[in-house]
Amino acid sequence: MAEKKMVEAITSMEEDFAQWYTDVVKKAELIDYTSVKGCMVIKPAGYAIWELLQKQLDERFKATGVQNVYLPMFIPESLLEKEKDHVEGFAPEVAWVTHGGLQPLQERLCVRPTSETLFCDFYKNDVHSYRDLPKVYNQWCSVVRWEKETRPFLRSREFLWQEGHTVHATAEEAEERTIQMLNVYADFCEEVLAIPVIKGRKTDKEKFAGAVATYTIEALMHDGKALQSGTSHNFGDGFAKAFGIQFTDRDNTLKYAHQTSWGMTTRMIGAIIMVHGDNSGLVLPPKVAPVQIDIVPVQQQKEGVLDKAYELKARLEKRFRVKVDDTDKSPGFKFAEAEMRGFPLRLEIGPRDIEAGKCVLCRRDTGEKLETALEEVEEKAAALLETIHHDMLERARAHRDAHTYTARNYEEFEKLFTEKAGFVRAMWCGDQACEDAIKEKLSVTSRCMPFEQEKIADTCVCCGRPAKKMVYWGRAY
Amino acid sequence: MAEKKMVEAITSMEEDFAQWYTDVVKKAELIDYTSVKGCMVIKPAGYAIWELLQKQLDERFKATGVQNVYLPMFIPESLLEKEKDHVEGFAPEVAWVTHGGLQPLQERLCVRPTSETLFCDFYKNDVHSYRDLPKVYNQWCSVVRWEKETRPFLRSREFLWQEGHTVHATAEEAEERTIQMLNVYADFCEEVLAIPVIKGRKTDKEKFAGAVATYTIEALMHDGKALQSGTSHNFGDGFAKAFGIQFTDRDNTLKYAHQTSWGMTTRMIGAIIMVHGDNSGLVLPPKVAPVQIDIVPVQQQKEGVLDKAYELKARLEKRFRVKVDDTDKSPGFKFAEAEMRGFPLRLEIGPRDIEAGKCVLCRRDTGEKLETALEEVEEKAAALLETIHHDMLERARAHRDAHTYTARNYEEFEKLFTEKAGFVRAMWCGDQACEDAIKEKLSVTSRCMPFEQEKIADTCVCCGRPAKKMVYWGRAY
Repeated sequence: MAEKKMVEAITSMEEDFAQWYTDVVKKAELIDYTSVKGCMVIKPAGYAIWELLQKQLDERFKATGVQNVYLPMFIPESLLEKEKDHVEGFAPEVAWVTHGGLQPLQERLCVRPTSETLFCDFYKNDVHSYRDLPKVYNQWCSVVRWEKETRPFLRSREFLWQEGHTVHATAEEAEERTIQMLNVYADFCEEVLAIPVIKGRKTDKEKFAGAVATYTIEALMHDGKALQSGTSHNFGDGFAKAFGIQFTDRDNTLKYAHQTSWGMTTRMIGAIIMVHGDNSGLVLPPKVAPVQIDIVPVQQQKEGVLDKAYELKARLEKRFRVKVDDTDKSPGFKFAEAEMRGFPLRLEIGPRDIEAGKCVLCRRDTGEKLETALEEVEEKAAALLETIHHDMLERARAHRDAHTYTARNYEEFEKLFTEKAGFVRAMWCGDQACEDAIKEKLSVTSRCMPFEQEKIADTCVCCGRPAKKMVYWGRAY
Repeated sequence: MAEKKMVEAITSMEEDFAQWYTDVVKKAELIDYTSVKGCMVIKPAGYAIWELLQKQLDERFKATGVQNVYLPMFIPESLLEKEKDHVEGFAPEVAWVTHGGLQPLQERLCVRPTSETLFCDFYKNDVHSYRDLPKVYNQWCSVVRWEKETRPFLRSREFLWQEGHTVHATAEEAEERTIQMLNVYADFCEEVLAIPVIKGRKTDKEKFAGAVATYTIEALMHDGKALQSGTSHNFGDGFAKAFGIQFTDRDNTLKYAHQTSWGMTTRMIGAIIMVHGDNSGLVLPPKVAPVQIDIVPVQQQKEGVLDKAYELKARLEKRFRVKVDDTDKSPGFKFAEAEMRGFPLRLEIGPRDIEAGKCVLCRRDTGEKLETALEEVEEKAAALLETIHHDMLERARAHRDAHTYTARNYEEFEKLFTEKAGFVRAMWCGDQACEDAIKEKLSVTSRCMPFEQEKIADTCVCCGRPAKKMVYWGRAY
């Protein structure tokens, strides 16, 4: 009955994708709601995913020379206002601290929604000469944006992220770093999260407040909606001019520095759920699974079964993250729970298996069961985890490709967004008026101008004027 | 001249310890001040120490079953007010958010100064049965306390820390966890930071707002002042009653849970500086040194020198954190800089060394130089780093013991605090009035009632009534 209750509790994704998502988030014990509207508790099962993601992303950062730092969480109002576009973009959605202790503050402070202004204020004193450049700093922290509608992981008033902020001597170097970090994100998504992404540039309408250019990676969720999964911004020397970040170059002249910033957030846990999950719950990519192998003893009250399970754990945990489920729940309940939590491999071992010197490995992603000789279990598990990662990535890619459509004219474009859910590739004239019109009519936004361009048609899908760029359009989270 | 400038810039600790501290913090590039009063930037050299500290402390937590989580940074005012002692302790020093976006909030939110109230609010929904217990959660985050006087690392309006919050079925189990975590902190200080500590219990005057008992580890800084280095609190069932955290026990009755919390902060970086530092700068314990071996090529323009330095780095970085200083600064400047930054070992290699198949290893803590055959460099470095850790710990212990005094009566007590700087052990009657009197007269506070008690005298050092406890007294940061 307990098993049934657990399975019954999930809405199927075909019936109601949004409710399925909420069910998985709750039943897999990733988050809990709180008394603080729009803020969530990230529970152990959710936070452990974040820790694995953070560790592997941080290693990739450091391999490119990134150094971690920590800046204050507060920004004085006058500092936020220094760059005009930036303050316009963020001021409407920040939280304001007006009192410290029992006293009103002389100047109110916002809780950082992002830290460009603080980094600039720091760099203006820290950068003097070309010898001080580049600075390639990053911080892991939480930020606050006072959103009206919130969803666990996808959009919350406070979320965890990393924000990289760099300073360079030349425009070329800044552009190079912007693209380099976008590639770090894209590789990370594919190689660690098994999520394929489209790399491209945001239109001016969609770019970051204060940036010259924003690059993005866009992923397609199972329901056909797009998720912006990481962004990398080139600021040119705009912030440097607003904040006075100047350095003496080799030629002994004073120059403004060029800057970038780039970020990835806890929303990637939402992406993992919506790209890989199924009607039995979460399906975790092996590289960020807090438990990679869940050992479930069968008939565990029989002599030797639990001992064998612990012995296997001791062997396997030298190479993998392993758990033995030795609770007094039934095997069926344990199986359902392991599926809900998305552990990539389940290892079943019972008295008959022990006698035959074997066990059963069961893949979470396909349900496939494989009998394995006990002496080969490490090798088999290692190979299977690699296969699972590969297959998850390819299934996600196939799903995305099957839901990526092409529209040559507005009629096709409208029909696709009425009948299908996915990316639609179509040509654009470069005028924001067309983006506005499309958004108003179809609730669709330009996701990016992909690096890999293709000439689908000669004219803009909206206005019919000559086209400049192929754009990925979609409904976004 | 550059070398001289670097060395000249530090005030000697004998001349002005506070200025020496500030100089080291700045010159070793650990922090920078910001436009946000009382908040600091932790720069790469400082943050890298924190990352190493965090990693090793987190591993020790996880070995005792701790799971990491993340809770919101905001606490609604009504939630903060639920536990009477707690709100009285913290309300005067919190930062208040009163506006979200362009709207005033219906209820103001404080930025967490500590998260007991949020954890309780979470646990009251998460704990139902004895099967749900214990919960042993921890979070790494930043907290805010609106301090008037601030010092880098020691006291700032925002600081980084971890806060563990646990729930247990029984009072005994909660007390056991409280002491267990105090021991984790004490072992961590000695084994990782090379800082010896006194373990004990805080008096009621000094305990945490809302706790039944607060345990502390106290360390002695080089100037004879005490630094509270980690605390572990047993809350009994006080918070559980205020928040309604109840569970059905095995006997089928509803009971209130018992709770603990425990924390350690970035102030430990301040402790490292003030326990181990000297007039040449920082001296880092090898286990938290971001660079353990700094390779300085001598006559690096000569053929083969830099190549040899890189070759040594490639060999050594398999086991250690290593850097080659291949900048165009003079060796003397490089030496001074490495000393300022506190790298435990400097490896000098020049043309003559290469010819002789050897190099020089120089200890930061003693200045001692050791000629080492190149083929033995890994083994020698490993042994030296262990020796350095051991010697740093023993020197700190000897310094503390030499500055720990005993007073049998008020005359001795006053004389010691007038003439000496350090801990003074003296008897206490248990009455807060004596603590208050001592604080007013001598600016001295009770640091702890040590676990290792000794009967120094029969009467209280202050009032002369019968004594109950031996107390460590000191002037504190």
